[in-house]
Amino acid sequence: MKVRLKRLNDAVRFEGVNDAGNSVIIEGGPDAGGEGKGVRPTEALLMSLAACSSVDVVMILKKMRQDLQDIQVDIEGERAMDQVPAVFTKIHLTFYLTGQIKPAKAEQALKLSVEKYCTVVKMLEGSVGITYSYELKS
Amino acid sequence: MKVRLKRLNDAVRFEGVNDAGNSVIIEGGPDAGGEGKGVRPTEALLMSLAACSSVDVVMILKKMRQDLQDIQVDIEGERAMDQVPAVFTKIHLTFYLTGQIKPAKAEQALKLSVEKYCTVVKMLEGSVGITYSYELKS
Repeated sequence: MKVRLKRLNDAVRFEGVNDAGNSVIIEGGPDAGGEGKGVRPTEALLMSLAACSSVDVVMILKKMRQDLQDIQVDIEGERAMDQVPAVFTKIHLTFYLTGQIKPAKAEQALKLSVEKYCTVVKMLEGSVGITYSYELKS
Repeated sequence: MKVRLKRLNDAVRFEGVNDAGNSVIIEGGPDAGGEGKGVRPTEALLMSLAACSSVDVVMILKKMRQDLQDIQVDIEGERAMDQVPAVFTKIHLTFYLTGQIKPAKAEQALKLSVEKYCTVVKMLEGSVGITYSYELKS
């Protein structure tokens, strides 16, 4: 897998581009000269984590023949602000699932995703405590 | 730090949104029902890593009073395709630096970024071998 990062201005705004031409704008924070025109690198990491896990959840619930109508995730990262660099020490994912889904199936799907199948979780879990919870509404 | 992920279709296309309203589109691969309309979660991770590191490089070279005119990064991730999940085993960053920059300063900036200051590298390096090289042109 290969991607490219290009700089968009003379400061810290970047465009990440994949082979298919899809791109995302990522920018450093105000302390680095950022102007708030893109997601921060660490925000992109949290989004990558939640998307990786959500793709699994969608696929698993589909295999379980559960009717998932919507899925949203709030992702909260707690940083070690007294360290350099200020790594995440904890990341909590709150999944909001909407649809005709049995609670036991939702729990199983989330558990399989976060604890077994999600590639990004697997790479981070050695250094970051990753937890999750969920809310289900029909 | 808090971000949100919303689903955009009835499959695996998601929008990550930060507090400032900046967003990125992340989509699962074709095997998961993706239609190639967003970067993949693992691609977003590679972009996050390269952006994190590049922000540092820009700041460090600025402090060193080196004239960095452009910076691009190719990021290549090698995955353990025989494992579930197929985590990255190696990630290599190739930095392309353009400007009036002394090679020793470029090396020092890259080393400080990748080996010391980059938050995303620090969280991943326990499970993924992260290496880098660079090309410099004036």
